[in-house]
Amino acid sequence: LIPPKVPVRHEVEIEVRYAETDQMGWVHHANYLVWFELARTALCRRSGHPYSEIEAQGYFLVVTATETRYLRGARYGESVRVAAWVDRLGSRGLRFGYEVTSPAGLLASGATEHVWVERASGRPCRTPEILRDAFAILAGAAGSLPA
Amino acid sequence: LIPPKVPVRHEVEIEVRYAETDQMGWVHHANYLVWFELARTALCRRSGHPYSEIEAQGYFLVVTATETRYLRGARYGESVRVAAWVDRLGSRGLRFGYEVTSPAGLLASGATEHVWVERASGRPCRTPEILRDAFAILAGAAGSLPA
Amino acid sequence: LIPPKVPVRHEVEIEVRYAETDQMGWVHHANYLVWFELARTALCRRSGHPYSEIEAQGYFLVVTATETRYLRGARYGESVRVAAWVDRLGSRGLRFGYEVTSPAGLLASGATEHVWVERASGRPCRTPEILRDAFAILAGAAGSLPA
Amino acid sequence: LIPPKVPVRHEVEIEVRYAETDQMGWVHHANYLVWFELARTALCRRSGHPYSEIEAQGYFLVVTATETRYLRGARYGESVRVAAWVDRLGSRGLRFGYEVTSPAGLLASGATEHVWVERASGRPCRTPEILRDAFAILAGAAGSLPA
Repeated sequence: LIPPKVPVRHEVEIEVRYAETDQMGWVHHANYLVWFELARTALCRRSGHPYSEIEAQGYFLVVTATETRYLRGARYGESVRVAAWVDRLGSRGLRFGYEVTSPAGLLASGATEHVWVERASGRPCRTPEILRDAFAILAGAAGSLPA
Repeated sequence: LIPPKVPVRHEVEIEVRYAETDQMGWVHHANYLVWFELARTALCRRSGHPYSEIEAQGYFLVVTATETRYLRGARYGESVRVAAWVDRLGSRGLRFGYEVTSPAGLLASGATEHVWVERASGRPCRTPEILRDAFAILAGAAGSLPA
Repeated sequence: LIPPKVPVRHEVEIEVRYAETDQMGWVHHANYLVWFELARTALCRRSGHPYSEIEAQGYFLVVTATETRYLRGARYGESVRVAAWVDRLGSRGLRFGYEVTSPAGLLASGATEHVWVERASGRPCRTPEILRDAFAILAGAAGSLPA
Repeated sequence: LIPPKVPVRHEVEIEVRYAETDQMGWVHHANYLVWFELARTALCRRSGHPYSEIEAQGYFLVVTATETRYLRGARYGESVRVAAWVDRLGSRGLRFGYEVTSPAGLLASGATEHVWVERASGRPCRTPEILRDAFAILAGAAGSLPA
């Protein structure tokens, strides 16, 4: 029997910033994409490959699509938790999933899609060799992260 | 014969801001949602009901979902055009469609979904009566906008 | 002998966000004002009066001036520390000081000035009574914060 | 008689964005630095040297200081005008002045200071030769811009 793939789910806590609110009194919806990015950054770091190093090694993980569902708003004075995981792993890109929660429950869920781009040429490329094992582990395909 | 519904398509021109770029050298993807909002604001204004007045009359048009596909990046030093239209009109909310273009072609497309909320109670509500005709015209269902 | 006033200095750690960088490869300068605000928020919270509660009690602390000196840039992949303190305390407003540091040393310093405004009337007002002692302690004028 | 130096004053019109407001109901103060940048960009463009070309030629105009005084707030639904001019011209940097106005009068004024940095080395440098005449004209020191 092959066990189902269970991706690594990583959470970060984010304090709502006053500047993130708008005149409706809630966090403006565009900021959720920035929060997703913070959680994605933390997930990459946890895999042993901080995204800043990935860029330094000559690759960009370019965003090709985003989607978000908003259920409840977030308020200044609160902190939210944002979970990220690898939702789908391709040979030339991947898809992350996200959930934003507060003590009040689920605030939003979303996903972002990305392709790998070689920094020097600006061209799409295959997943950098050095990242393949680590991202396969994140995706739950095999192995496990260092404790 | 009933002619097909053709929604009013309204375009705005937006100069890329330096602060909107990120270290990849392109506009950060979260800013497209802000651009969509600018085009949506202009479309409402064109309908004769500026969104600032709609809020003043006691209603919020709350974002419940967004989605964006990114094809090419936008650069500082360029201007882009963002078109918005009513994609679907419901009794308690609506969906807008968007396209971002530059002389290089289509950069991105997307959509946002919204529900009407009564400001005083914070509760979802039906489309404010005063807006129904104007939004039906935007959606291409009937009539036309003042020239 | 009267000891000199030593204001309470409170620090927060802030992870640089990718969206905060610009195409120069460093954090865009406008974000430092947002970081100052995070440190100010934490300082208020430490005084026992979270700013979100101050607004709920009917007061705004409106920004009337800002100034910042930038010595070195901050990069994605780093965290910075932002210290805030009450630099000057008036009967109707106050001034905060700030320093942003990283392991590389001092990155920036700055200040913001504020006046109290009554939310209902939109008018400037005296420091809300409930905050006077706490802010005097922050400013180092007297007493001390709870441990 | 030597006429006094009168710098070229250039204005741009900026529509307030919903995302720029905060829960106080006014534009968040950090956005004024972004508006200053838009006016500065337009002033450079008017000098015949768009800032995007200056960077392409290998130079950065790095921000070393900002200051802003806020007199009245700006609201969503309004447009503001932002004027920029060269306030002081040095051999290795310069200072710009700004004013933000609306039909209600002066909303804010400010200044930003900058040094020239060679992109390749990351080192401060003298004003790029190609820009000296154009910036001297902007500063009102001599000559005039093409009509």
